[in-house]
Amino acid sequence: MQEKKLGFIGVGQLAQPMVKHLLDQGYEVLVHNRRRDPLEKLISKGAVYCQSPEDAVIEGGIMFNCLPDDTALLSVFHAHGTIFRKLGDKGLHVSLATISPQASKIVHERHKTLGGNYCVATVMGRPDVVENKRQFYIMAGESDQLDRVRPVLESIGGGVFTLGEKPEIANAAKLSFNFLIASAIESMAEAFTFARKNGVDVNQFYSMISETLFACPLYKNYGKAIIYRQFYEPLFKMALGAKDMNLVSSAAKECRTPMRVASVLQDRFTASLAKGRDNYDWLGIALDVEEEAGIVSESQG
Amino acid sequence: MQEKKLGFIGVGQLAQPMVKHLLDQGYEVLVHNRRRDPLEKLISKGAVYCQSPEDAVIEGGIMFNCLPDDTALLSVFHAHGTIFRKLGDKGLHVSLATISPQASKIVHERHKTLGGNYCVATVMGRPDVVENKRQFYIMAGESDQLDRVRPVLESIGGGVFTLGEKPEIANAAKLSFNFLIASAIESMAEAFTFARKNGVDVNQFYSMISETLFACPLYKNYGKAIIYRQFYEPLFKMALGAKDMNLVSSAAKECRTPMRVASVLQDRFTASLAKGRDNYDWLGIALDVEEEAGIVSESQG
Amino acid sequence: MQEKKLGFIGVGQLAQPMVKHLLDQGYEVLVHNRRRDPLEKLISKGAVYCQSPEDAVIEGGIMFNCLPDDTALLSVFHAHGTIFRKLGDKGLHVSLATISPQASKIVHERHKTLGGNYCVATVMGRPDVVENKRQFYIMAGESDQLDRVRPVLESIGGGVFTLGEKPEIANAAKLSFNFLIASAIESMAEAFTFARKNGVDVNQFYSMISETLFACPLYKNYGKAIIYRQFYEPLFKMALGAKDMNLVSSAAKECRTPMRVASVLQDRFTASLAKGRDNYDWLGIALDVEEEAGIVSESQG
Amino acid sequence: MQEKKLGFIGVGQLAQPMVKHLLDQGYEVLVHNRRRDPLEKLISKGAVYCQSPEDAVIEGGIMFNCLPDDTALLSVFHAHGTIFRKLGDKGLHVSLATISPQASKIVHERHKTLGGNYCVATVMGRPDVVENKRQFYIMAGESDQLDRVRPVLESIGGGVFTLGEKPEIANAAKLSFNFLIASAIESMAEAFTFARKNGVDVNQFYSMISETLFACPLYKNYGKAIIYRQFYEPLFKMALGAKDMNLVSSAAKECRTPMRVASVLQDRFTASLAKGRDNYDWLGIALDVEEEAGIVSESQG
Repeated sequence: MQEKKLGFIGVGQLAQPMVKHLLDQGYEVLVHNRRRDPLEKLISKGAVYCQSPEDAVIEGGIMFNCLPDDTALLSVFHAHGTIFRKLGDKGLHVSLATISPQASKIVHERHKTLGGNYCVATVMGRPDVVENKRQFYIMAGESDQLDRVRPVLESIGGGVFTLGEKPEIANAAKLSFNFLIASAIESMAEAFTFARKNGVDVNQFYSMISETLFACPLYKNYGKAIIYRQFYEPLFKMALGAKDMNLVSSAAKECRTPMRVASVLQDRFTASLAKGRDNYDWLGIALDVEEEAGIVSESQG
Repeated sequence: MQEKKLGFIGVGQLAQPMVKHLLDQGYEVLVHNRRRDPLEKLISKGAVYCQSPEDAVIEGGIMFNCLPDDTALLSVFHAHGTIFRKLGDKGLHVSLATISPQASKIVHERHKTLGGNYCVATVMGRPDVVENKRQFYIMAGESDQLDRVRPVLESIGGGVFTLGEKPEIANAAKLSFNFLIASAIESMAEAFTFARKNGVDVNQFYSMISETLFACPLYKNYGKAIIYRQFYEPLFKMALGAKDMNLVSSAAKECRTPMRVASVLQDRFTASLAKGRDNYDWLGIALDVEEEAGIVSESQG
Repeated sequence: MQEKKLGFIGVGQLAQPMVKHLLDQGYEVLVHNRRRDPLEKLISKGAVYCQSPEDAVIEGGIMFNCLPDDTALLSVFHAHGTIFRKLGDKGLHVSLATISPQASKIVHERHKTLGGNYCVATVMGRPDVVENKRQFYIMAGESDQLDRVRPVLESIGGGVFTLGEKPEIANAAKLSFNFLIASAIESMAEAFTFARKNGVDVNQFYSMISETLFACPLYKNYGKAIIYRQFYEPLFKMALGAKDMNLVSSAAKECRTPMRVASVLQDRFTASLAKGRDNYDWLGIALDVEEEAGIVSESQG
Repeated sequence: MQEKKLGFIGVGQLAQPMVKHLLDQGYEVLVHNRRRDPLEKLISKGAVYCQSPEDAVIEGGIMFNCLPDDTALLSVFHAHGTIFRKLGDKGLHVSLATISPQASKIVHERHKTLGGNYCVATVMGRPDVVENKRQFYIMAGESDQLDRVRPVLESIGGGVFTLGEKPEIANAAKLSFNFLIASAIESMAEAFTFARKNGVDVNQFYSMISETLFACPLYKNYGKAIIYRQFYEPLFKMALGAKDMNLVSSAAKECRTPMRVASVLQDRFTASLAKGRDNYDWLGIALDVEEEAGIVSESQG
């Protein structure tokens, strides 16, 4: 039996196209967001706006959260303990947020004590990717619960990877994945700058790598975007990239794993924020690489 | 008109399958190598062994070098100045070696002064890849000369990328390429170790990345090899990887490009050599990543 | 008028010799600590043990805290809001703890709202240094309040540096200071290992630096301790060093200052904890430097 | 018996005050330098200019070299093999240059084969320090030879440290020393920037460190110079600092010692050169630290 009524807490840039697709699929969706304005379009399509998080909870039903960070997640679930009771023994909380494994674990423990089941389904894909239903999900949790939410997610996206019983594993996997992406950006930026300084045509170099060993979406799409300097109309903001790299560094310390490339990225993102690039695309770390090499970056204007 | 007689100086692990393919294609090949033993098989197939480098030079013909490093290259061409005169105005020196752009430039200058044309065609692919004719070449030089050598290379490999008139550009491009490969190895090693410490099944994580954003030969093949710990029967030795990263670092200084991930790699390879892993595969830098994270590496035996 | 009755919350290894000296100076001291056992000696010397933090507060008086970290500090002051009211308008909270500027700011804000004055006096010196009254203090806060606590601190230590009106400045200065110390340890470990590998007698090298440009307590004392391998009977534990470097890294991100040597230290301490060295002296990061260089560290036993 | 006639090859900024002091002490000094102009003053004081290096060699006597780098040293001694024969069995070559242990070893080997004794006496101190006779020397070599040159050096400087029989040990020690200095500069720059961003008065912070744990010439002098931004009238040029850090990195690879802070310094100096700061003082790496932190550096003018 499929559940056709869903709750959604934290409906930002990434969650909005998801809710849109859910509405298109005929789901009834209760939405809560700190600010109502960004949701007007969804509301006009049929989403039901809820003033408080509790109101977006369906007893014994599925509730998604796509809150922005650890602090938001923990404070919502700390301040609104009634969520757990309302979800009850049958309810399911599906966390889509990019948060630390630690925070995920804390929420999981609370569910065990206070009620509601908990699983994680982190979203791989930026808002434009979700818009085109090409995102995929990294899931972890008890298999019964995963089975329950899988059809919902599959109806609005490209695929699901399942990792195990402990929900926080999916959070760790998402961080590993984002780390790999960011490290590929940094490495391309260094390689392109080095090549350019040596007189190599960067477009030719790009073709060379992206048609051979690195013939995959990440190097093709991000590589091209770096070369065409698509730094100023962000698909994923620098500030969010920095947040994710902070999560990686913190989680790395927590599990006692020195990650030296992650440390390089940490410093790179900190420098980018120090230079006021919060609203650039995170690919814009390439600018910092160039500036270090004495290449004066052209202004945006 | 195709040239069916070729010279080959420096016939190591990488050059041997190339010469074999050339013989198979009906080329007559003069080979010089410091040690004769490794060439016995090729000689029995028809390669003509030459005691001195000059003897492997065909007047006005094509001469390949696949010498191991800057020092070997510069000392051979310094000690054997007659090579230039024997090549003459019509001769062509094709450098396949992984050397610094600086050394390449020096040899180029000498050719301009002493005779012989010069172009670079660096080889992308390890010996096993060359064996299967799946390597490709990054070429640079005057287009007449590139046209001359291209059919020879295409007859024994997978493809050719052409970059411009200055030969040393192809050396720089090769270094950029190898840097990208090494940085992907380091990043995967860090990501896998982090994932593993957080309870993620690394095989599942591997599937996740290699079937989506990182669905390309590099991540697929090297990722699998890291997971299956293929460190002990080297396809590309640690000592050679370290040499290449030294070339990257030196060239980066030379062109005034700080490359922080290259610095991480430099330290990583130095540590691997310090631990006596010269003859491991260069993927074995993953062992150092694990040891740093307190994972005691199983012994090879 | 001097205040002869004082409260003390969080009486660990560092605070114990301070309280002892205060008792010796004739102060009456109320002490609160989560565990009572470590305080028996002080209690027998006259310290009055208090079950709850509030009980250690003297109305309108001076209360010190020397809690171990941000979490402890924030949870004590969150759970025991009555502390603020009991201190009242005239009371003074002196924070001796090594905490983040951010946490310090939060506590300061609460005092402004709920009562009590707040200043910071971070302690420079390990327990053995405090024992010998050779520690010094980095203070910040309103000058009236600093004047009030200065004689107390001067009676039991070596000196006071005063930095300005905002209390959290003293926390930042302490972190900068500890960062400088840790970076000197790392640099000496690298220099000594490099020297040793090149056949230099490390004792002679030590004399050379510590009698000339680096003739100061830090290089003299820590340099000697590294050479004599005083890693196993900690004067300042690795785990605490790691905590301090985490504070530095977090605060560096917070104020948008990339600190690359701090990132190196972060990775170094994480590796040391990964290898189970929590209870070594923080100088023991030198072992990790040696292991990276292929020097197999002798076991402790 | 003291030798009152000396040869000197390579008389740059550092060697000039040394020769001046030698003349003042009554020595007769033969000087060779690629360019004669900078030596006019010394010549007018009595130094004897020699067109070729051999002419500056006294048979069986002492010859100093203070050549700028490995390349200069090796090419002079390669091109002028007669130097060895002219020095003869009794002659002594004292190398004052900052060169790699490897290059030093090569020259040493040649002396063993071709004639002349060899020892190393690296100079600790910049030209202004040598001017005031406050430099000191790090020496290594056979003790007979060291005894022979010691009185000469002591007559014009502050002191001598002796390390052992292998001359190249003194080169390694000098590199370790310079590394320690550069790492202290980097660490201070990071600490000062961090402190400043947190509202700490950097002058007060400077007092705090330089009057306590870091009360030594290095932190006092260099710390003050960083704060007063003495970057533009170099006492030791950035380009020379970069050269020395290159020597450290290369020697570290050679002896298989990963030095992570040295890698940070390498990137820092490369960035400073990339920004065109070759003629700044090497303390100017602090500018790069600030720029990374978003602090726009004031122009020099």
